[in-house]
Amino acid sequence: MDGRPSGGDVAIAVIGGTGHQGFGLAVRWGAAGLAVAIGSRSPQRAEAAAARAREIVGRVRGTPPPVVGYDNIEAARLAPVVVVTVPAGAHAATLEALAPAVGGKVLVDCTVPLDRNPAYAVQLPEGSAAQAAQRILGPGTPVVGAFHTVPASLLQDLARPVDCDVLVCGDDREAKARVVELARAIGARAVDVGTLRQAHTLERLTALLIGVGRRTGRHELGVRITGL
Amino acid sequence: MDGRPSGGDVAIAVIGGTGHQGFGLAVRWGAAGLAVAIGSRSPQRAEAAAARAREIVGRVRGTPPPVVGYDNIEAARLAPVVVVTVPAGAHAATLEALAPAVGGKVLVDCTVPLDRNPAYAVQLPEGSAAQAAQRILGPGTPVVGAFHTVPASLLQDLARPVDCDVLVCGDDREAKARVVELARAIGARAVDVGTLRQAHTLERLTALLIGVGRRTGRHELGVRITGL
Repeated sequence: MDGRPSGGDVAIAVIGGTGHQGFGLAVRWGAAGLAVAIGSRSPQRAEAAAARAREIVGRVRGTPPPVVGYDNIEAARLAPVVVVTVPAGAHAATLEALAPAVGGKVLVDCTVPLDRNPAYAVQLPEGSAAQAAQRILGPGTPVVGAFHTVPASLLQDLARPVDCDVLVCGDDREAKARVVELARAIGARAVDVGTLRQAHTLERLTALLIGVGRRTGRHELGVRITGL
Repeated sequence: MDGRPSGGDVAIAVIGGTGHQGFGLAVRWGAAGLAVAIGSRSPQRAEAAAARAREIVGRVRGTPPPVVGYDNIEAARLAPVVVVTVPAGAHAATLEALAPAVGGKVLVDCTVPLDRNPAYAVQLPEGSAAQAAQRILGPGTPVVGAFHTVPASLLQDLARPVDCDVLVCGDDREAKARVVELARAIGARAVDVGTLRQAHTLERLTALLIGVGRRTGRHELGVRITGL
């Protein structure tokens, strides 16, 4: 009676969904009518974010969407697709905690390994956060890298179209195809950019965009591939 | 009397200018009225490419542009800005040969370190071709990375606008500003993406685009930053 969807209905869990990027994705997926479980370490904060998402989407669509809050592990248990949007410093610990709950599911990693001090330099000289996630979860849980370069504030503003591409990489074709569908659900064009190795490039590209944003004062930078 | 500009007039040398990327840049700069020295290991091939560029530009502008051919070293000697567009395998040897001719000039590196067999993987796990160029040339010759992601065939077709961005990186502000001007001369938007370290990202991004091009059959892929 409180509008919370049952577990079987949840389409996507957004781990770290109280953060800017995860919250923006939850809002867009909610606006598309998908049932979203927002995860946080604190179920109270998760539910507060979910209430905010229901309000934002409800203002535009008339009816609040099926977005609800849980602690991260419970959110991951409920959904077939689990999207990780946590700060780089929490990445490894989050993945290790999630591992028992996500076996065989599609794990989408949006993490950008950034060193905020002094200059948004990428911390990982080799590999990528997404490849690290794949190593932690093992081969039974396909990891897909996506949504890194889509600006959070643009996602949260339903009045505007998502006019940049979602660049998607991964080693598992079927998992990647599902993430392409989720990208289309937020109104973006999805581009398959190759295997999970390309996460290295996507994560660094996002750091590059953040640097350009700092220097230009434009903080909704994205990327579009021309000629496609 | 043969239309060859004198050395003092040359604005840009394009080393490896008989290749697709270098030739395309020479055509665009020639069309912008800039005097270009096309360099090649063979001065005969360089002059043949220059004649082709004069013909392409002449058809559009009415008058052939001041594009001429020289061997690589002579071309580099003539110009204040030297653009290196050679295959990755020839990169280090070319830079070493050029070093005595380019001291104090602006060196623009467009090289993408690719391994064509089997899958366009980037060969350099660390750093970038542009950073390698800077190490070879030393601190007196500022290296700027740029033009990697601009498709060669689009550059060569003057009937079409260059609708992608030129992403420019480097440690020397003045050198970078000159390259931004050269990017505008080909009709593109130039975006300063940071220090020379970002060449790593630009080179890998180009490899990513080439991979997408192979899978989609689209071979004029570029990048545009949205939200700027």
